[in-house]
Amino acid sequence: MERLKVLLHINEASRWPALLTGAANLVNDVGPEKIAIEVVANGEAVTVFANFGQGAAEAASGAVLRGEMERLAGVGVDFVLCRNALAMYSVPGHCLPSFARVVPAGITEIIRKQLQGYAYVKP
Amino acid sequence: MERLKVLLHINEASRWPALLTGAANLVNDVGPEKIAIEVVANGEAVTVFANFGQGAAEAASGAVLRGEMERLAGVGVDFVLCRNALAMYSVPGHCLPSFARVVPAGITEIIRKQLQGYAYVKP
Amino acid sequence: MERLKVLLHINEASRWPALLTGAANLVNDVGPEKIAIEVVANGEAVTVFANFGQGAAEAASGAVLRGEMERLAGVGVDFVLCRNALAMYSVPGHCLPSFARVVPAGITEIIRKQLQGYAYVKP
Repeated sequence: MERLKVLLHINEASRWPALLTGAANLVNDVGPEKIAIEVVANGEAVTVFANFGQGAAEAASGAVLRGEMERLAGVGVDFVLCRNALAMYSVPGHCLPSFARVVPAGITEIIRKQLQGYAYVKP
Repeated sequence: MERLKVLLHINEASRWPALLTGAANLVNDVGPEKIAIEVVANGEAVTVFANFGQGAAEAASGAVLRGEMERLAGVGVDFVLCRNALAMYSVPGHCLPSFARVVPAGITEIIRKQLQGYAYVKP
Repeated sequence: MERLKVLLHINEASRWPALLTGAANLVNDVGPEKIAIEVVANGEAVTVFANFGQGAAEAASGAVLRGEMERLAGVGVDFVLCRNALAMYSVPGHCLPSFARVVPAGITEIIRKQLQGYAYVKP
């Protein structure tokens, strides 16, 4: 059976918990081998990666998010970041997690994936 | 002629008025017999159903929403709620309106409907 | 080569900067001749057009938005406004920019475009 394919779009940092909960529910519901999940983060959503490298409370909440992202990456979830957004919000390259992939423009990636049969969901 | 098919996704309680207005506009614009509308509520959006069973001001606004939902259900709009979200937000089962249907994971429902040709709109 | 086609949906005025940045990034990334972008504004997002005709600070920020919209319209971006929303928020017709087109219901337009192969993105 072909995998279900979904593109999860996030452009506001406050939506990361909802997005990660949605991705985890989906993996639990259909099984990791039956789903292909790509997360595309652009706009202000990428600022959460800057927090990974600094601060106190922000570092703590950033670490919780990163932990859950790593767990999901380990079961096959693909994390894609928009280079335009990283530049606009001055997120340093050394802050990016190794499991994330950078594309020139997140919005183009979102369109191309839909052409490839991915459903679009914005958590 | 085949019906237009649309999946309306809501995950924030504050968006219910916009969603219900959108659904009503759509029914008015194309006619109830030419449209298939499925509303999928997950995340914090399901908390509005808890309010249906309690409180004063919340019960009042909840009753207005429920009245409009009932009217739309009466012209064929399908209301689908995410079981994961109902559990996460502790919405008691006796609070759920009879016209609503519960699925194990709202996000899976959203993807499957798009595979069946439903457009995705997030009001 | 066929153009990429995308429908950008906006229903909150606060999202206009994100939407216009996304559209500009997309045009830059793939080239104006290889992309078809339609923006559909409904709900509270249309109030930004009322501000074009009045006020001081609002007129200033409205003018910045209108300038960027005009630039994007000049490279082929289509701006479509929902008549239901314009009526609900009492936006006077004389405030509407000449490059914008009005449809009876924005939500119907969003569905029809997806049927025509447009990807859906909500910035």
